[in-house]
Amino acid sequence: MNNNFFTLIHTNNNSNARAGIIKTAHSEIPTPIFMPVGTQGTVKAVYPKTLENLDTRIILGNTYHLYLRPGTEIINNFGGLHKFMNWKGSILTDSGGYQVFSLKDLRKLTEEGAHFASYLDGSKHLFSPEKVVEIQRFLGSDIMMVLDECTEYPCEFAPAEKSMQLSEKWAIRSRKAFLESESLYSFPQFQFGIGQGSMYPSLRKKYAKILIDIGFEGYAIGGLSVGEPAELMYEIVEETNAVLPVLQPRYLMGVGTPENILESIDRGIDMFDCVMPTRNARNGQLFTTRGKINIRNSKYKNSNEPIDDNIDSYASKNFSLGYLRHLNISDEIMGLMLASEHNIAFYLWLVRTAREKILKNEFSAWKKEFLEKYTQGDN
Amino acid sequence: MNNNFFTLIHTNNNSNARAGIIKTAHSEIPTPIFMPVGTQGTVKAVYPKTLENLDTRIILGNTYHLYLRPGTEIINNFGGLHKFMNWKGSILTDSGGYQVFSLKDLRKLTEEGAHFASYLDGSKHLFSPEKVVEIQRFLGSDIMMVLDECTEYPCEFAPAEKSMQLSEKWAIRSRKAFLESESLYSFPQFQFGIGQGSMYPSLRKKYAKILIDIGFEGYAIGGLSVGEPAELMYEIVEETNAVLPVLQPRYLMGVGTPENILESIDRGIDMFDCVMPTRNARNGQLFTTRGKINIRNSKYKNSNEPIDDNIDSYASKNFSLGYLRHLNISDEIMGLMLASEHNIAFYLWLVRTAREKILKNEFSAWKKEFLEKYTQGDN
Repeated sequence: MNNNFFTLIHTNNNSNARAGIIKTAHSEIPTPIFMPVGTQGTVKAVYPKTLENLDTRIILGNTYHLYLRPGTEIINNFGGLHKFMNWKGSILTDSGGYQVFSLKDLRKLTEEGAHFASYLDGSKHLFSPEKVVEIQRFLGSDIMMVLDECTEYPCEFAPAEKSMQLSEKWAIRSRKAFLESESLYSFPQFQFGIGQGSMYPSLRKKYAKILIDIGFEGYAIGGLSVGEPAELMYEIVEETNAVLPVLQPRYLMGVGTPENILESIDRGIDMFDCVMPTRNARNGQLFTTRGKINIRNSKYKNSNEPIDDNIDSYASKNFSLGYLRHLNISDEIMGLMLASEHNIAFYLWLVRTAREKILKNEFSAWKKEFLEKYTQGDN
Repeated sequence: MNNNFFTLIHTNNNSNARAGIIKTAHSEIPTPIFMPVGTQGTVKAVYPKTLENLDTRIILGNTYHLYLRPGTEIINNFGGLHKFMNWKGSILTDSGGYQVFSLKDLRKLTEEGAHFASYLDGSKHLFSPEKVVEIQRFLGSDIMMVLDECTEYPCEFAPAEKSMQLSEKWAIRSRKAFLESESLYSFPQFQFGIGQGSMYPSLRKKYAKILIDIGFEGYAIGGLSVGEPAELMYEIVEETNAVLPVLQPRYLMGVGTPENILESIDRGIDMFDCVMPTRNARNGQLFTTRGKINIRNSKYKNSNEPIDDNIDSYASKNFSLGYLRHLNISDEIMGLMLASEHNIAFYLWLVRTAREKILKNEFSAWKKEFLEKYTQGDN
């Protein structure tokens, strides 16, 4: 384990909210951090240089999509995913497990791994724990995730426990494959385990301890934000964090709304990823400091207000709501570009501001104040 | 007429190729110039700041589209098209006539003007010469075009002559409406006449002289690139330019390929616009100094070559053909963004280089050399 990988800098008084720093070969990542999602080797509609301008430190890539297209051989020929997509910051790649399990009819699960058919050409594939490590070696992500089984919600205790036992075997094999292989490029990679256990705190805690025994550079909480009430998610986050090592990073996978993020930061989460800022941008939803905005709303027709003057990005400050509405109604690509840039800028502002407040022990008060204003948005 | 509007700087020895400068309130425009097309208040998939970085001096806006959506009232509320779309350079707007005439079944032509139904909601509209000037006052373009009738190709002599007579009446009314109205914003606007006459040099010359007598700040050649052979287009350009005033700008509307542009510059054209660089970009076609490229071609799968190292743009220099192919195959917006930026950068490089060569009396030799290399592209 790398002792310099994560440094805990401060924990907010009267809260579990914490500020830290993750160091990879590609960037220093102040935590809490949000990772924009770049599924197919691009954060949709946002230039790499725009991400740099927004001070993005780390993005997420999808192992499943990149494995199927363009394929690991091609990415390897380009010297890894960073070079392929011209991204200088850090990259975390998921294991692909979540996408495979979403296929339902197209996959079959055995102890060996997940068998599935390509959605592109029907060809047959197997994601085993070892294979997923190998793929992520080819991709050359800074942080790789282990293959795990993600249970559906709701899930009875017995199948949740059984699934957890499979994930445990896979976690052991994943770590072994990681330790027995090497980076293909000139920088170290790190590996995170993923906690499961559905909505059962006892399972969550038990499994978290198992993962800690195996030993990873960081720990993710998976299988949340799958349809459960937010309060239940917060409870599981709280219970799990209580047993996770204080001096290692904690990553809540696939979460979430600005509210979800602040509540989870409050409970000690350091890392987040979510498609929401970019996907919702493409549907005309803007996240702003005065709340969510549906840009198609006719009340913005003549609005000369910038998208959000509090957010420091080209898109946020230089284009009016009225113009963005016109672009959206007219199906113009520029509408997607500006909304995506702004929404990512907003999410990064949110976690950056959270961190500043944590360092001043003002997080709880700020969270309350921010959410009061934020929930006044128009939809 | 404004004497500072256009300055002819140099005409290449042994050629009609010329270098000049157009001055508007928003920019100095070195000619020959290419104007990227921004139909609906955005050059598709290219940020205004990217256009600025590419040293774009003038873009084209479509009166027809902007009139229907968002509408002149809204654009006026924003203080004109420049402010609405956050574009600091110059804007030329067409008359909307070409789009209306393309509607065929949806429009009816009378001496009063062109009656048509909106493609958005079926509502009825009239584009008269006066109305089109008024709309362009609301848009606040730097250069406006008169309403004219564009004949189809091929067209018999008699209907071409008859059409020309209608265009003449409209040109007179257009100029009157222009002179009797004022800019709504704080800068002057200019107006160009549009030559017609199908493929008949006698009609083209006759009509050009009529337009000169009416008197405009510049003269366009319309009704070309409508399906005729390139050689015929060049002949008409040559014949028409022979009677157009040397000290005023000449604009060849809707043209064209890089070859078309260089051949027309050689015959004395100063201004061009075309959807080709952006539209073809969205279909995976790249214009490069080594010819046209179809980025979907599998031979680029592992190509780590930049799109075009000779072109000074972020897209051209920083992303490989292999990556662009992956984006295109994967239907990623980023593929459209990078290809559009590069193609515009290429077109601007083309006219900028043409100008440099004209100033050194090297245009003809360079044109020959460039086209020899360019025509070796892969499709």
